[in-house]
Amino acid sequence: MRDILPAEKSFREQLLAIVRANYISRGFQEIETPALEDLSKLTSGQGGDNEKLVFQVLKRGEELEQAQAAGASLADLGLRFDLTVPLTRYYASNHSKLPRVLKALQVGPVWRAERPQKGRYRQFLQCDIDIIGDSTMLAEAELLSASLSALEAVGLEDATIRLNHRQLLSENIAGLGVASEDALKAMIIIDKLDKIGVAGVRTELEEAFGPEVAAAGHSWLSSLDQTEFPEALKPLVEALSDLGPRLRYDASLVRGMGYYTGAIFEIEHPAATSSIGGGGRYDSMVGKWLGTEVPAVGISLGIERIIELAKLPEIETSNTVLLIESEAHAVLALKLQAELIESGSSCRIEIRQKNIKAQLSNLATQGFDSFASVGDGIKSVSELDIRKLD
Amino acid sequence: MRDILPAEKSFREQLLAIVRANYISRGFQEIETPALEDLSKLTSGQGGDNEKLVFQVLKRGEELEQAQAAGASLADLGLRFDLTVPLTRYYASNHSKLPRVLKALQVGPVWRAERPQKGRYRQFLQCDIDIIGDSTMLAEAELLSASLSALEAVGLEDATIRLNHRQLLSENIAGLGVASEDALKAMIIIDKLDKIGVAGVRTELEEAFGPEVAAAGHSWLSSLDQTEFPEALKPLVEALSDLGPRLRYDASLVRGMGYYTGAIFEIEHPAATSSIGGGGRYDSMVGKWLGTEVPAVGISLGIERIIELAKLPEIETSNTVLLIESEAHAVLALKLQAELIESGSSCRIEIRQKNIKAQLSNLATQGFDSFASVGDGIKSVSELDIRKLD
Repeated sequence: MRDILPAEKSFREQLLAIVRANYISRGFQEIETPALEDLSKLTSGQGGDNEKLVFQVLKRGEELEQAQAAGASLADLGLRFDLTVPLTRYYASNHSKLPRVLKALQVGPVWRAERPQKGRYRQFLQCDIDIIGDSTMLAEAELLSASLSALEAVGLEDATIRLNHRQLLSENIAGLGVASEDALKAMIIIDKLDKIGVAGVRTELEEAFGPEVAAAGHSWLSSLDQTEFPEALKPLVEALSDLGPRLRYDASLVRGMGYYTGAIFEIEHPAATSSIGGGGRYDSMVGKWLGTEVPAVGISLGIERIIELAKLPEIETSNTVLLIESEAHAVLALKLQAELIESGSSCRIEIRQKNIKAQLSNLATQGFDSFASVGDGIKSVSELDIRKLD
Repeated sequence: MRDILPAEKSFREQLLAIVRANYISRGFQEIETPALEDLSKLTSGQGGDNEKLVFQVLKRGEELEQAQAAGASLADLGLRFDLTVPLTRYYASNHSKLPRVLKALQVGPVWRAERPQKGRYRQFLQCDIDIIGDSTMLAEAELLSASLSALEAVGLEDATIRLNHRQLLSENIAGLGVASEDALKAMIIIDKLDKIGVAGVRTELEEAFGPEVAAAGHSWLSSLDQTEFPEALKPLVEALSDLGPRLRYDASLVRGMGYYTGAIFEIEHPAATSSIGGGGRYDSMVGKWLGTEVPAVGISLGIERIIELAKLPEIETSNTVLLIESEAHAVLALKLQAELIESGSSCRIEIRQKNIKAQLSNLATQGFDSFASVGDGIKSVSELDIRKLD
């Protein structure tokens, strides 16, 4: 967890405003869920390994005493580890008040109790779009088209997407001789391909499933034919034909979560060493809370990584500092400030310090581009001598 | 805690964008602190009764086991209950990278483990501005001027401010015969004046300090002379002379927290039954973490109440739905959508449902104002028959 300084915060907020506006212009509607959810919802087996990383909130008052006395669970709430589990709970709680097809946008922090390590934070921002209630591939097409458009708007025109389909992957894994109940275990090994290579995957498959599966896996991964999209993905790729070579078939793409049921995708960028977003179809998750199945598909942008890479359009603003000699000029300074703001500038009031040179240089560093001294005799903005800061 | 539906979320975000822009135009810089702070920082005696309402986060792994075995504290982190304690911790941690006078803006959720009751949430949004490093009343003047301006921008032109000064209040309380170590206790009783009236305050003062203090308190509160601002507040009121009768002296204004040292203020609005914001000067709080005293003053807007009262300027947007017969028209629909967005509209794609009347009426409820059917033969936006929704 970390503090965000003014310059970075300003950049983050500008970036989020662009991404938000982009998604909203495509008919996505922003929603919000609380940071805390019932712990039982967060540890119901939907969230894979992330469920082990939940920050748990201690029960309070009598309930805590009773739990301690009974040796029962001490926690009743948890901080969300992603935005997908809360979204499906939200849809189940509120579906009668929501449009039949919900196109949801969420921007918010999530928390994971990971060991502190470089570049990883225990609180970080996610930005998800999800479509709930549409079983057609129009939903996937909209998510991918909208996400690439949002990334373009923040200067990441070179983002590309790798696609796979969970059903194909399952078939391929069954073809290796892995029993269906072990499929997820095999997927988690194959998911490491990027990190440990084909030989590493072979070793782990051998440990888990014996030499025959390992040999079959090695042979499959060594000769993947990915030149052409498989039938299951063709309609989607055709709908996105404008994106052309920015879509790529990746037969070994897994995505860690157990809940995916259809197309899965990951967004890459040449300047990033790992993916900058990802998602997929998860048609049975909403049904877990609601009782009836509702089709759903979502994609999440890794905002922290995107912030590191983004190039935002420059905004032309005038950012002026009014220097006053003492608080005795406060009335006047506040009046001039109001006038300057009215005319479209940003304006900060500061009391002039003894070391005026250091003060001005510090203000330039803070992003202010001009200054003017306010003193007796000045009555309106037109009488100010506004000078450039550099 | 609660879910926020799309229409309310959209209103909230518009309101926050206006308030943010307003403060930023006055030279406030947005910052962000993590939701979780060390529990010791949140329970150091600065936060008054709120310290009892902290959601505490359970230790993890070995540390939890050790704590349980040793009968030690089970929690190490807590969710912040306000934005002031984290800000002073932030300033102490980062002051070398911050401007000499920090004018900070914070917008974020805070959490309090209160009993659930109508209109009170356990997660709610606060919006604070603070000036750290300026001991002059220019700081108070800027905070009050900026806050009233932000409220005006969201349609609350009738907000007014009650002012008092902690030093005057302390003198008045000493004048009742209360020992200085009991001053805060007496303040907390006087703070209830709005709710329990002069007679109620007298009863509680008598229980706490005996009949003489109670009689003196009754006589003081019954004959408050608030027609003229006291000397300690005059320079501030003069600096804000443009606000005229929107500032009012309230000799019995207390504000619950123990950390205030100077001017204190509360914002009221005729349509609200309780205050919609408040704050004051807290010159010794930063010093608690940093070792050296740094002057500070802040004001917090009660965003949840403001959202209920606000009237936002209407935004003229065109919000179109493209209806397609099936996913087979996805390519075309995505192309037309991109064109419409390029021309400044918002545009959502939907598959036409059997009950088209119900679908269109639902879309109108969701804020869409027009629709067009996309089918064979249509190649560009100019060929669309865009019709009004009502």
